Amino acid sequence: MGNVSFGQVVYLALRGELPSENVGKMVDAILVSSIDHGATPPSALAAMTVASTGSPMNAAVASGILAISKFHGGAIEDCMGALLQVQDKIQAREISIAVAAEELVAEYKEVGRRISGFGHRLHTRDPRSTKLFKLAKDLQVRGHFIKIAQTVESELAKQSGKQLPINVDGAIAAVLCELDFSPSLANAFFMIARLPGLVAHAQEEQTRQRPMRAIHPKDHEYDGPEDRSL
Amino acid sequence: MGNVSFGQVVYLALRGELPSENVGKMVDAILVSSIDHGATPPSALAAMTVASTGSPMNAAVASGILAISKFHGGAIEDCMGALLQVQDKIQAREISIAVAAEELVAEYKEVGRRISGFGHRLHTRDPRSTKLFKLAKDLQVRGHFIKIAQTVESELAKQSGKQLPINVDGAIAAVLCELDFSPSLANAFFMIARLPGLVAHAQEEQTRQRPMRAIHPKDHEYDGPEDRSL
Amino acid sequence: MGNVSFGQVVYLALRGELPSENVGKMVDAILVSSIDHGATPPSALAAMTVASTGSPMNAAVASGILAISKFHGGAIEDCMGALLQVQDKIQAREISIAVAAEELVAEYKEVGRRISGFGHRLHTRDPRSTKLFKLAKDLQVRGHFIKIAQTVESELAKQSGKQLPINVDGAIAAVLCELDFSPSLANAFFMIARLPGLVAHAQEEQTRQRPMRAIHPKDHEYDGPEDRSL
Amino acid sequence: MGNVSFGQVVYLALRGELPSENVGKMVDAILVSSIDHGATPPSALAAMTVASTGSPMNAAVASGILAISKFHGGAIEDCMGALLQVQDKIQAREISIAVAAEELVAEYKEVGRRISGFGHRLHTRDPRSTKLFKLAKDLQVRGHFIKIAQTVESELAKQSGKQLPINVDGAIAAVLCELDFSPSLANAFFMIARLPGLVAHAQEEQTRQRPMRAIHPKDHEYDGPEDRSL
Repeated sequence: MGNVSFGQVVYLALRGELPSENVGKMVDAILVSSIDHGATPPSALAAMTVASTGSPMNAAVASGILAISKFHGGAIEDCMGALLQVQDKIQAREISIAVAAEELVAEYKEVGRRISGFGHRLHTRDPRSTKLFKLAKDLQVRGHFIKIAQTVESELAKQSGKQLPINVDGAIAAVLCELDFSPSLANAFFMIARLPGLVAHAQEEQTRQRPMRAIHPKDHEYDGPEDRSL
Repeated sequence: MGNVSFGQVVYLALRGELPSENVGKMVDAILVSSIDHGATPPSALAAMTVASTGSPMNAAVASGILAISKFHGGAIEDCMGALLQVQDKIQAREISIAVAAEELVAEYKEVGRRISGFGHRLHTRDPRSTKLFKLAKDLQVRGHFIKIAQTVESELAKQSGKQLPINVDGAIAAVLCELDFSPSLANAFFMIARLPGLVAHAQEEQTRQRPMRAIHPKDHEYDGPEDRSL
Repeated sequence: MGNVSFGQVVYLALRGELPSENVGKMVDAILVSSIDHGATPPSALAAMTVASTGSPMNAAVASGILAISKFHGGAIEDCMGALLQVQDKIQAREISIAVAAEELVAEYKEVGRRISGFGHRLHTRDPRSTKLFKLAKDLQVRGHFIKIAQTVESELAKQSGKQLPINVDGAIAAVLCELDFSPSLANAFFMIARLPGLVAHAQEEQTRQRPMRAIHPKDHEYDGPEDRSL
Repeated sequence: MGNVSFGQVVYLALRGELPSENVGKMVDAILVSSIDHGATPPSALAAMTVASTGSPMNAAVASGILAISKFHGGAIEDCMGALLQVQDKIQAREISIAVAAEELVAEYKEVGRRISGFGHRLHTRDPRSTKLFKLAKDLQVRGHFIKIAQTVESELAKQSGKQLPINVDGAIAAVLCELDFSPSLANAFFMIARLPGLVAHAQEEQTRQRPMRAIHPKDHEYDGPEDRSL
């Protein structure tokens, strides 16, 4: 307590070793990047729905956790799988990142499968990815999988003709690979990051709304503090 | 198997004794009366929300179960509490049902508290209550708590001037008291009755809808078989 | 209520059609066959563990439901898959049950995979399977998949030299195939059947045990009614 | 990301304001103090039990969360309630901490109720409390509720004659009061802190143990790294 950050003990719990302060900061940044930011995701809706029936906080949170799954949070795990496939090619046949990434993109294209972690509805460059990668560099986290992710991004542009930038899921995936986490643990970070928001949604539902209201999945208004510098 | 009904083994699991065939039929009727009948209750919405993220059926069902709580299903337990309060008055002071019910209604009125299990948005008589009470009579289930519930209903009309008919929750409560179940077990019947529907909602969500859709709490259309005689 | 059994409405919820009284009886028998019968299965232990922390009944039940999964309850789904593979062979190539079953058993043997639903620690014939099949016959449920299961059983004896009788999971699987349920719904029956027991375990934990006790997975004594004729 | 700690965003999610870096460090320390440290608590057992059935990680974690409740984690909330009762006395009647604490201890004693957060099986002084309070001072967190807790501790010794030191739950309670959190949010910190351990237990169960094993609540051996300086 006081000597190590939460990021460091998360790493300790999941990997069995206390990491450097820098790695702790990297884990903290991953958690901060995935923090809850709205009432529309299924995890938030599930928590609010259960909270609205008068169930206690742990039941509402558990319901939200049950909604963090294949399609909700799962893109990180899928992207880690793709990045590790590239790495397997590199190691098995002693080829370059460029050749391995080209092959992978071609293979996905042939079977018509999307690579998770690339592409963004609005941005041609996801500012959160840029930030995470910059931070990884500053914290002297190895850059091998980030390089793989960036090469896949270039290959996608080349082979598909479309700009599919590394999004925040892809950036987290690259950093988690860098830190040697298994893909099966990817959603753990998402769950930890989302838990405080699930609690907040459940609390708000029970203190500010009438029980059993019909919870619209999109139609709600923000009434918190105005835009401000944090 | 084949010799006893599901209603009988439910009673056996919860009470430790195999009941008569008639009591089994009564339990079956209670379960049938609470069966799921739409996609708007929070339990159905929670199950669908979790199912839409790709979580397996057990996760979706668990989430629906977590939504069966104080305000969703809880009216039966509350009503059982009120009926047992009347019974306590009768036993403690050897007074009649009429006197005890009059007192209870007056007490609730004084503190401005509604008695759960009475009142219906549409009906002045809930046909499901009539049916359950008729069945209890046919199956020779004791009628003591049904009498209490009916007396409370009359008292409510007298003291409030409003028609607050025993609704299906109230009728189930009376029958469960008749069968000597503890109020803390009331929601168990609701959970058992709703589980098949939770499974059906989860299955439908995963086989007919796209993942992660925004699930509107009310706006959906029935597209099953047309009205027919079952 | 009163006119249809719980088994019939379970079928209605899951299939969208009200079945005959006989099919309702068959569903009831399947539910009765899977009813909880002890405190050692993971679903019971999960429910008791959660109940021991003071969590409400719905949380304990949800935890038990979360333990009904691939290895706990999943044998029925797996066996349905195998029986439907035999049926696919029959239909695709217009071959006999005998030929198709022989092929399937050989295929499983070659890859060293066990067929779920066959084999029993104690019995060389599972009396519950015999009972369920007899009941299916009495209730005039079609016997096609039961025939397939019995042929697989004979083939297993022939090809492996071991007696691997159809166990209760295999018998339920055959009957559920007979009733045209999808394998993905198999665990729904197990969940419905186990829910009353989960409630009973949670209730007992909270009313008879001290909070937070260490719950031993096997070491407990039965102190209910003595052996008796039910 | 990179600019704020996880502790700061936890506070932001739960209180709606981004706190100072120091408050973030305080929240981090609370989370670190509650991190999972063994396989015996009910939350760990529930997660392992569900994991052993082949259920996915989110189901195992949800089950663990459902076990964080009144008796498991709840001492913090209870202790916050007691400390706030002292504070209410102080404010309502403008009395000193000493007088208010004396009254509270006497009141609890009269009804034979224990004050949560005080007393320890082994220690006469809980080193984790000392550490947390020292840290609060270093981080310039207000010391009002810490003073209340320490005064209650002295009063308990005086009125009961027994040494009942502030334990880690009591220390966390005092600091959470200091940071103006509502008692209803106390278990949120416990859930966040325990989630990484729940994931680790589930992962270990599924990768190192055979499915459906009987999980003993106490009998397990540590086989991780040896004692070392972290």
